[in-house]
Amino acid sequence: MKRFIVGIDLGGTNVKAGLVEAQTGKVVCSESIKTQSEKGFEDTFDRIAVLVDRLLKDVDIKKEEVEGIGMGIPGPVINQEIVGFFANFPWEKNLNVREELEKRTALSVLVDNDVNVITMGEAWQGAAKGHRNVLGMALGTGVGGGIVVDGKLLGGVRGAGGEVGHIVVEPGGKLCGCGHKGCLEAYCSATAVIRETLDRLTVNKTNKVWESIGGDLSKLEAKHVFDSAKAGDDFAKDIVDFIIKYLAIGIGNLLNIVNPDIVVIGGGVALAGDILFEPLKKEVAKTALGVCMEGLEIVPAVLGNDAGVVGAAALFAVK
Amino acid sequence: MKRFIVGIDLGGTNVKAGLVEAQTGKVVCSESIKTQSEKGFEDTFDRIAVLVDRLLKDVDIKKEEVEGIGMGIPGPVINQEIVGFFANFPWEKNLNVREELEKRTALSVLVDNDVNVITMGEAWQGAAKGHRNVLGMALGTGVGGGIVVDGKLLGGVRGAGGEVGHIVVEPGGKLCGCGHKGCLEAYCSATAVIRETLDRLTVNKTNKVWESIGGDLSKLEAKHVFDSAKAGDDFAKDIVDFIIKYLAIGIGNLLNIVNPDIVVIGGGVALAGDILFEPLKKEVAKTALGVCMEGLEIVPAVLGNDAGVVGAAALFAVK
Repeated sequence: MKRFIVGIDLGGTNVKAGLVEAQTGKVVCSESIKTQSEKGFEDTFDRIAVLVDRLLKDVDIKKEEVEGIGMGIPGPVINQEIVGFFANFPWEKNLNVREELEKRTALSVLVDNDVNVITMGEAWQGAAKGHRNVLGMALGTGVGGGIVVDGKLLGGVRGAGGEVGHIVVEPGGKLCGCGHKGCLEAYCSATAVIRETLDRLTVNKTNKVWESIGGDLSKLEAKHVFDSAKAGDDFAKDIVDFIIKYLAIGIGNLLNIVNPDIVVIGGGVALAGDILFEPLKKEVAKTALGVCMEGLEIVPAVLGNDAGVVGAAALFAVK
Repeated sequence: MKRFIVGIDLGGTNVKAGLVEAQTGKVVCSESIKTQSEKGFEDTFDRIAVLVDRLLKDVDIKKEEVEGIGMGIPGPVINQEIVGFFANFPWEKNLNVREELEKRTALSVLVDNDVNVITMGEAWQGAAKGHRNVLGMALGTGVGGGIVVDGKLLGGVRGAGGEVGHIVVEPGGKLCGCGHKGCLEAYCSATAVIRETLDRLTVNKTNKVWESIGGDLSKLEAKHVFDSAKAGDDFAKDIVDFIIKYLAIGIGNLLNIVNPDIVVIGGGVALAGDILFEPLKKEVAKTALGVCMEGLEIVPAVLGNDAGVVGAAALFAVK
């Protein structure tokens, strides 16, 4: 009887692996190692295999008790096995990560994009538990997305399904890191909060944000803006409204296309809390069709630090 | 051996039913009756059942040889059976059309949104034959869409999946029939071509469009604009460029979300032909991520007048 799943979150800096109960999603134990991608994928994958063995040994679990290894990676993943490319890693294109890891661990492996994986985790054991049509968004340094349609992740032909950060919400608008203009990511990521605030601070210094960073622009984080907005600062509140306006267009567009019944939002921007979530739904209704608003929930992600590991395990748990 | 499928296209004015070969998609015979929705759905469905019987009898096919009836309807359809509402019909909400038609015909029934059905038809026997990830768009009076993900139609929780006409492509832009502003439909439908042209004709009458309608604005159709553009008229070409700009944003956004490998465009606007399709792909690349452009085709729909009937049959043919 297989009662465990190994969940692995392969990030730019760290690889976090956890042993997860297949029934409950509970993380039994977890451990992180450095990714050190510059040494090549073989080195990293060899060490991941050792890490998996160590985790199992530590809690005296045999491989026979493990359903498989789920892994989240930054980049598009085709058919839950081939990674089109690793964002910011110097690894080769179209690497069959499933095969590489199965070879090294003698366990079944499923791989998917990191935000897809997080979305699946929220659908399995988190804020969207029990929902089979879910839109997940991670508003961090960039904006990522995961779309669950009838219980399955929407991958697309090249694994780029759910790349919601790059839908255009303002034609000819702000330059995005992808090279295009007006992308959602350029308006609603934590980075976007900072750039919009920096821009406005050049002409207005009589506000709580300026005070809270003591006039040192290099210290500015999205949190300064949200905290100032919560304290009632009009300058900061107007920036939050600006974020909400574009986030609502992005979400509204996605609702009209995918029609899920729950939207789960994680990442640094989601930490803004009520000042973001309360006005958001009303604003979304200006873009989403009435039929797409029926019974809709928009909620913060809840899995937090475990999201990557639990989500990766969800690739095996949710079928 | 079941060798046929009945395909039915339930429109606002006419109901067209056809007998379709299950292997080839060939329409053996077809017939239209008036919808007369004002008499109530029971009256229409009773007459549809009679029409189906007559079709089968005419070509001497027994019900045992029929896999089932596929039907396309204007409106969102939940789980290929319940119609959330009929666009422009005075019929009740949440009608179980599958049940109503199975009761009257003693055949299996699957129902879906009309543009979903057309997209499925193109994927089965049309321009997207053999593709399992398809974006279908119908640019007519309005803009409809159908999304096929891994061979299945994306329906969503209320059947509103693929309502691509109402993604916002210009925040605060043109008023749309849905009541929102800046929807794709307000920029890229045949109606949108007409309204943009009417707008521009108020300040410019020295152009081929004005000539071709003899100065009678009530005669204006999208075709006048496309024909003038093809004849080299700058006024008309600029309107086509305007349509392409927004259509490209809409398609680009959809590619980033759904990542299909083919886009099939039908409806009156698609009849513009090369002047639309040739510049379109280049323009789409300004919004779609590079990975979503890899191997992408953007092509005109080919099923034409049979699209509704063949597409409805595809609900049974493609599983």
